[in-house]
Amino acid sequence: MLYQGQWLELKEEFFKNDTDQLIRWETIHKHGSNVCVIIIARLLPSERLVLIRQFRPALNKIMLGFPAGMMDTDASIEEAALREFKEETGYIGQIENTSMPTNINGGIMNMQAYFIKVTVDETLPQNQTPIQELEMEEEIEVVLQHKSTLKQFLKSEYESGVDISSILWCMAETF
Amino acid sequence: MLYQGQWLELKEEFFKNDTDQLIRWETIHKHGSNVCVIIIARLLPSERLVLIRQFRPALNKIMLGFPAGMMDTDASIEEAALREFKEETGYIGQIENTSMPTNINGGIMNMQAYFIKVTVDETLPQNQTPIQELEMEEEIEVVLQHKSTLKQFLKSEYESGVDISSILWCMAETF
Repeated sequence: MLYQGQWLELKEEFFKNDTDQLIRWETIHKHGSNVCVIIIARLLPSERLVLIRQFRPALNKIMLGFPAGMMDTDASIEEAALREFKEETGYIGQIENTSMPTNINGGIMNMQAYFIKVTVDETLPQNQTPIQELEMEEEIEVVLQHKSTLKQFLKSEYESGVDISSILWCMAETF
Repeated sequence: MLYQGQWLELKEEFFKNDTDQLIRWETIHKHGSNVCVIIIARLLPSERLVLIRQFRPALNKIMLGFPAGMMDTDASIEEAALREFKEETGYIGQIENTSMPTNINGGIMNMQAYFIKVTVDETLPQNQTPIQELEMEEEIEVVLQHKSTLKQFLKSEYESGVDISSILWCMAETF
């Protein structure tokens, strides 16, 4: 352990390579849960993706990305995803499927991410005027975008000064 | 600055929210360059993707992902990407296109990633017996996989104990 912050820790790790040399590496660990959910949600029948713009202190900029949050409860991954999604966007969704755990930035961090695909029935009364339930430190703007125009939209967002999440770009690029 | 490691720094940032409350946030910064290249390469004509398995100290496991590296030179992004790709896989590629900069894990880090699409002419003599040029701390195994079977392959890798990079899963899922 090099340093223990309130939420993050910086550690040094040592391992031996093929030729038995000792290698030193610096890694980041999150206190408590290191599991997050990334919510890939679309409204039906319009097929618009539910994205968020959020101020990110590490970048000192607004970033556009998918709704996401850390798992900090004993709830199932799906319950946690739907609750986080409701808090950040106001929409009430349904689980379509859940990925295996994957690793974000495994080169330096131990953060595990599940991708949760969610559908939102936009004809339901409760999804007509979605109301966010944000925490004090959250400022989140919901953005709806059809996937057919997503890549062009990301370019225009970036040109207007908004940072783009790698995961979102990656999905737009492969659609 | 909370702590300055050899490669990583842990910082605290303060910002005011909508209601003028001061919020504290912990963020990670990398010394020197914070720009990385992620190389999405395919062999032609076989259309196989070039992936790597690599031991990741932060996970204490092998992770499967795309070749990638930090930009630590004055070279162009494309030059750096082709050199990193040659070092990690032995293949000599050609640039197909370069993305705008995107942000990996912008919630806590300031790391910027460019996605570089690369093609490899597998009929060229120099690509018949590719030879890696690894650094002391790198142990990298090259894996070739057609995109039509990628998702199934990722599942079998995960079941055999290999971690999967979020970016790679995300691309497999949307193919």
